Amino acid sequence: MPLTPAKHFSMIAAIDLGSNSFHIVLAKVDHGEIRILERLGEKVQLAAGIDEQRELNEESMQRGLDCLRRFAQLINGLPPGAVRVVGTNALREARNRTAFIRRAEEILGHPVEVISGREEARLIYLGVSHTLADTPGKRLVADIGGGSTEFIIGQRFEPLLRESLQMGCVSYTQRYFRDGKITPARYAQAYTAARLELMGIEHGLHRLSWQESVGASGTIRAVGLAIKAGGLGSGEVNAEGLAWLKRKVLKLGEVDKLEMDGIKPDRRAIFPAGLAILEAIFDALELQRMHHSEGALREGVLYDLLGRHHHEDVRERTLSALMERYHVDLEQALRVEDKALQALEDVAEAWELDDDWHRELLSWASKVHEVGLDIAHYQYHKHGAYLIEHSDLAGFSREDQLMLALLVRGHRRNIPKDRFAEFGDEGIKLLRLCVLLRFAILIHHIRGSQEMPQVQLQAGAQSLDVLFPEGWLAANPLTQADFELEAEWLKRIGLSLSVC
Amino acid sequence: MPLTPAKHFSMIAAIDLGSNSFHIVLAKVDHGEIRILERLGEKVQLAAGIDEQRELNEESMQRGLDCLRRFAQLINGLPPGAVRVVGTNALREARNRTAFIRRAEEILGHPVEVISGREEARLIYLGVSHTLADTPGKRLVADIGGGSTEFIIGQRFEPLLRESLQMGCVSYTQRYFRDGKITPARYAQAYTAARLELMGIEHGLHRLSWQESVGASGTIRAVGLAIKAGGLGSGEVNAEGLAWLKRKVLKLGEVDKLEMDGIKPDRRAIFPAGLAILEAIFDALELQRMHHSEGALREGVLYDLLGRHHHEDVRERTLSALMERYHVDLEQALRVEDKALQALEDVAEAWELDDDWHRELLSWASKVHEVGLDIAHYQYHKHGAYLIEHSDLAGFSREDQLMLALLVRGHRRNIPKDRFAEFGDEGIKLLRLCVLLRFAILIHHIRGSQEMPQVQLQAGAQSLDVLFPEGWLAANPLTQADFELEAEWLKRIGLSLSVC
Repeated sequence: MPLTPAKHFSMIAAIDLGSNSFHIVLAKVDHGEIRILERLGEKVQLAAGIDEQRELNEESMQRGLDCLRRFAQLINGLPPGAVRVVGTNALREARNRTAFIRRAEEILGHPVEVISGREEARLIYLGVSHTLADTPGKRLVADIGGGSTEFIIGQRFEPLLRESLQMGCVSYTQRYFRDGKITPARYAQAYTAARLELMGIEHGLHRLSWQESVGASGTIRAVGLAIKAGGLGSGEVNAEGLAWLKRKVLKLGEVDKLEMDGIKPDRRAIFPAGLAILEAIFDALELQRMHHSEGALREGVLYDLLGRHHHEDVRERTLSALMERYHVDLEQALRVEDKALQALEDVAEAWELDDDWHRELLSWASKVHEVGLDIAHYQYHKHGAYLIEHSDLAGFSREDQLMLALLVRGHRRNIPKDRFAEFGDEGIKLLRLCVLLRFAILIHHIRGSQEMPQVQLQAGAQSLDVLFPEGWLAANPLTQADFELEAEWLKRIGLSLSVC
Repeated sequence: MPLTPAKHFSMIAAIDLGSNSFHIVLAKVDHGEIRILERLGEKVQLAAGIDEQRELNEESMQRGLDCLRRFAQLINGLPPGAVRVVGTNALREARNRTAFIRRAEEILGHPVEVISGREEARLIYLGVSHTLADTPGKRLVADIGGGSTEFIIGQRFEPLLRESLQMGCVSYTQRYFRDGKITPARYAQAYTAARLELMGIEHGLHRLSWQESVGASGTIRAVGLAIKAGGLGSGEVNAEGLAWLKRKVLKLGEVDKLEMDGIKPDRRAIFPAGLAILEAIFDALELQRMHHSEGALREGVLYDLLGRHHHEDVRERTLSALMERYHVDLEQALRVEDKALQALEDVAEAWELDDDWHRELLSWASKVHEVGLDIAHYQYHKHGAYLIEHSDLAGFSREDQLMLALLVRGHRRNIPKDRFAEFGDEGIKLLRLCVLLRFAILIHHIRGSQEMPQVQLQAGAQSLDVLFPEGWLAANPLTQADFELEAEWLKRIGLSLSVC
């Protein structure tokens, strides 16, 4: 279920299916500004329900779905596109995520997107940067989640570096503090594991440097409040307070005994793991203090949604950067895009491709279909699909990327129809978009700016008729031969192509 | 069987296992210059022996091996590294190439490399450019082979653009002129197929433009000579002559009747296919004339071999370009290389890694192990392996690339030992190189220029002992924890790592 794009909504909502908590935030849109109407959060602890086989168990699914039933009331009646629901690390990890997503979508009536760690980092930064003063210096933002921890260095509203590590307060609790005992050895194990994770990114962060550091999660707020309660600060996390808090937590020795100001009862169990991760971050990045920001992923999702509605779509920028990086022949890409969108208009009704979303996807695929050429000519459609599937594409969900990659994969030679079938009902529409993309590429197979004739398309359930101007095809036998080959390829997916 | 690298030989040889003919050229090296001593060629027509299942049949294998037995006498006694044997399209295509290669290597006593189409193009250009006057303009070089046709635009000794298309005079003969009849309809089919292949590259070639065009194969020479015999030129191919020759060939109607000056009897069968391809090239690229050059792939291989021996190894340049394109952290790569090569010295004897080739491969892998980071951090070792396996890396054979890709694939997290086993006896050595690479990366896991201690390695058949300076490890618990994790990974490949 892809998003319907850019319209002007008066009310928008973001739901964040985190590994530790689920959150919803509902806002009014007023002359392009956001006014928050409602915030809710529940500790669902989805990550705790993932077993050794990386399956999400039924119990934790139920906890999540119950929570979403409550959230659903708040967004009742909001139109498609006004609500964005994102899943993070627990859903990235769970092999059976699709089962959960289907049920969640049914309850919410809106699509659920699983986003990559770096996309999560981008959205977190967007959320945090809107809560901070608009100062010119660089900022480090860290967000310790239930399953992953994100790091961003950014300036004003622009993220410069985004990283996501596989460590979180729920997963580390499972691994090091499962029975609630807090010993120095276990704490050291959790701390060391976090330091090893950090090694891969700390040099890159240091190299960019930053002027202030900001934390954006419940863990960081709770640690700051506990330090404040101990009289060592005013709500921020600082190195001295961390050392004091660690001694105190180790002395108490059990999570049940963490009855401290600032630490809510439902956070006690995951507090030692969060503290160990935070201490590792302070040491690896040589921090002295970190302030807390209330902005987070869900606020970022809201601002991102607002941007899309106001035509500052980050996805366009992402694709432009991709095309530049892989030296795409821009003129050819635009010619193909133009022709593909014309073709879409001809067949949109007959082929049920009338969502704006289909137009958008076809346009994206036209732009990037040749990125793989930069790796090698031989089988470049496969290389392009690989790059699109695996790159961190800001603004795109995992499913967006998979669909886009498949269109690129199928843009020449054999069409892997089984791969299309994996997308269920949407698969047949994707396949039709792929046929349109191929058509546009064939028309511009001979590159260059020579005039190509206006062509009319007529689509049936299992057929596509291409009508060239009278006599044109006979005078252009190469194009004719090209379409004869194409007819062979399309026959294999059960589509009859006729050209005259 | 990898190459032994750069030594100074007084005699070198190149063997080209083409789809149509096998060739050998033997040369004396005199103060860095090449003097050809001997040339031999035989029409083996390997491509004609590939069936529908892409299997090379026994009969054509025998033809090839018989030919190589004759060639073997010429290179009798030449040391390893002085002979380079390259296979092209027929061997790229044949699924059972390994069976042929094993037998060929046994006969020749030298390794056989299957090279990519673009690598072939590079070597062809190298061969051709040495036969031409050293003029400043850009040149188009085309080489119509038995199974593939290569195109290069180059300037002086530098190729600027390299392309390889799946069309050749043997494969097109099989497809369009199998029974020896030459009809206008079949000729048109062959011509159109070639035009369609050319569509993918003609725009790119036109965009670069060229001042002269040169052809480098038997087909082009034969067409030029036939045109000359008809009184329409002096050995070059020209548009007028092509038109005349085509009419004449179609009028004769059968390959057996092509008793013309310039066309040797054993070329008659493949002549119409070659002519159709050449005409398609003339039309697609709007050529008026094309001169013939005697330089070809085999000469290119000789010059390339000479370059390696004189430390102008094109592979170094290729890797530098790859590192730059994918923004590799150069300092880190060089630190890792340095440490990996030190480690190799410690264990080379015990682990039988004493070939220069092992040192070279480890050095390459150190340099490029992080290329995948440019796609995404998540599983970047896999992205890096993908890029190295699929990119056109000038100077590297297919097998070189596969080995290098595997080292990159295995440089962190799980080591895919089954993939190493696919390399047979060489696999265990590759696995050991991979362990050394991982060791060097661990030592420099914390990036930056801080001083790391000198470490001593001791290798046993199934063990590796790492000796840090007294007390260092206790003072650096992170590195200690890192090596403990590594010991777990290495246990899975049956290697016991101990650190003290």
